[in-house]
Amino acid sequence: MAADLSAAAALARVRVVLARPSHPGNVGAAARAMRTMGIADLRLVAPRRFPDAEATALAAGAVDVLDRAVVSDSLDLALAGTVLAAGFTARDRELSHPALALREAAPGLLDATRDGPVALVFGNETSGLSNDELGRCRLRVTIPSDPGYGSLNLAAAVQVACYELACAAAAFAVHEPRAYEVATAEDLEALFAHWQEAMEASGYLDPARPGRLMERLRRMLARAVPERSEVKALRGMLEAFLRRMGR
Amino acid sequence: MAADLSAAAALARVRVVLARPSHPGNVGAAARAMRTMGIADLRLVAPRRFPDAEATALAAGAVDVLDRAVVSDSLDLALAGTVLAAGFTARDRELSHPALALREAAPGLLDATRDGPVALVFGNETSGLSNDELGRCRLRVTIPSDPGYGSLNLAAAVQVACYELACAAAAFAVHEPRAYEVATAEDLEALFAHWQEAMEASGYLDPARPGRLMERLRRMLARAVPERSEVKALRGMLEAFLRRMGR
Repeated sequence: MAADLSAAAALARVRVVLARPSHPGNVGAAARAMRTMGIADLRLVAPRRFPDAEATALAAGAVDVLDRAVVSDSLDLALAGTVLAAGFTARDRELSHPALALREAAPGLLDATRDGPVALVFGNETSGLSNDELGRCRLRVTIPSDPGYGSLNLAAAVQVACYELACAAAAFAVHEPRAYEVATAEDLEALFAHWQEAMEASGYLDPARPGRLMERLRRMLARAVPERSEVKALRGMLEAFLRRMGR
Repeated sequence: MAADLSAAAALARVRVVLARPSHPGNVGAAARAMRTMGIADLRLVAPRRFPDAEATALAAGAVDVLDRAVVSDSLDLALAGTVLAAGFTARDRELSHPALALREAAPGLLDATRDGPVALVFGNETSGLSNDELGRCRLRVTIPSDPGYGSLNLAAAVQVACYELACAAAAFAVHEPRAYEVATAEDLEALFAHWQEAMEASGYLDPARPGRLMERLRRMLARAVPERSEVKALRGMLEAFLRRMGR
């Protein structure tokens, strides 16, 4: 039982295992998919071709993941040292563990990294994981998908799985500070007064029968939460309109 | 004004737009990615090569998505009829809409399908979305990823985005029908053209040195999510301004 890990340290303990991959392109694309999510430990069990130029090409900038990939003959070797292995399968599967949807499984998978490496295990592109391979996994995980269609491409499945783990780790959360100043109530009132003046000058708004025009404008601008600089630009525009209309 | 939709009907209103894709393989892989998540409406803006044997090969069983893909020269055409367009970009971006993480954005994107088609817009593999393309999107969405590495492969990004929409659809709750009609992409483009005309007529906007005025206007309106009737009122006002300014 280990202490809490930082997001990066937790993801460093996530291992992707590809069992009997047929297409080197998928291996390369899987490496790239892992790398985008801060996951770098790749194990290949009996790949048909590896290393391979196509794998390298599709790994884009993640060639380091391929370079460090460990190749073995058996799934047992690829799972050595892991405290939890999750086998990815399409939804229906006779005689096997009940499947968890990926999103349900992700927090538990991440949490288990406190104890040691956790493996995400993917089968061959055509046949998936064999019953024997699946038997070596403690969990069965499914990426929900359209039952009327086949399953995800191997690298696409790796991408979605790694994305879910990174989300569970809140590894790369987007927290952009607000980069602008929101307009104040006074700014807005001055804008509305200016706007009304321009609409009256144009004849579009009849002061004797104003209807709900200003109310609607207020409501729309309220939703926009205008910036101060935007209010300034709009007022500049209205001023130009007024000047050109001879006020 | 729309009623509640089933998950399938909601996903049928999700449109994937690929702007200027370079690699046919990515187009095919994106089609497959969409299809696994019950999404089938693909639009291609100025693809370098399409149709193409490599696209067909990588689409696997999703050739129907490619067959029905609509190719156009401009992003405006690809967005025609949509009520919301979300532009996908890597995290940092100057002067643009604030980015939402995909997971935060997904429920709102799905919800908007009650009003009409919703576009997920992806840029070129190398350069991403241009500022002009992004300006046509109401939302900017980011797939959180390792900042120390480049971004996701195009088809991988499409896979993750469609997966999130499908996850959000499964959680599709009962909603009150919306009491108004949201403006479409065409409504907004016509508004911006009208607005620009008025600003030029007033001398406020110099066509030779437009600066970022239109970009800022687009951004503010994007936040407001204007109703159709609001766009109509604004255009009536602009028309009155133009008339009074002697056009």
